[in-house]
Amino acid sequence: MSKNLRVSELLDYYGQLLTDKQREAVEYYYNDDLSLGEIAENQNISRQGVRDSIKRAESVLFEAEEKLKLAENSKKLRDGLDEIRKNIDIIDDLNIRRYRSNDINESIKVILKELEALNELL
Amino acid sequence: MSKNLRVSELLDYYGQLLTDKQREAVEYYYNDDLSLGEIAENQNISRQGVRDSIKRAESVLFEAEEKLKLAENSKKLRDGLDEIRKNIDIIDDLNIRRYRSNDINESIKVILKELEALNELL
Repeated sequence: MSKNLRVSELLDYYGQLLTDKQREAVEYYYNDDLSLGEIAENQNISRQGVRDSIKRAESVLFEAEEKLKLAENSKKLRDGLDEIRKNIDIIDDLNIRRYRSNDINESIKVILKELEALNELL
Repeated sequence: MSKNLRVSELLDYYGQLLTDKQREAVEYYYNDDLSLGEIAENQNISRQGVRDSIKRAESVLFEAEEKLKLAENSKKLRDGLDEIRKNIDIIDDLNIRRYRSNDINESIKVILKELEALNELL
């Protein structure tokens, strides 16, 4: 069974759509790098059962992304927030070196705090 | 059958998880305000069939939101972007009135463009 590196990423977004057993198997396999045999032992099912469970879980994850594009949109949002952050840093730098405005500084602080909070949502 | 006003909102986020027939019935009912009888006629099924289809669709939508919280997170993201926008406007205003920095103005323009693009993703 080949490992698809996107599975780990999609698990972050759509893990809640899996059953507990499926999610556990996928985490063991992709995040903890356990073998199918080791997972089978942990979950007390057959090696083939683990394989089927992971395959089903992967289908759920990829179908969810195809329909909802949560991972794709989150990446776009993160990139946009990064671009905003870069330009805030430019303004901050100009303000510190040239204009020394407390009001601008206050607004920059609010924006930086919001950017941090938004990044945590993604 | 009582109308839950959240259904229309959730349809924007999770409509892709419904079958075409379900989505059509929910749109007729919630967005176009058609009666169950009118939808039944349009879809060429029974009134009870329409009712069941809408009920099933509602379950899918509410379960998806419970698990993925896409609507809830999008609202938080929009609120955060609004807060950033407000503070950018403050900086813009200060810059126009007092400092007249072209460099700050350039960065503000980039940020405003990014904010607009991000809002469209939500």
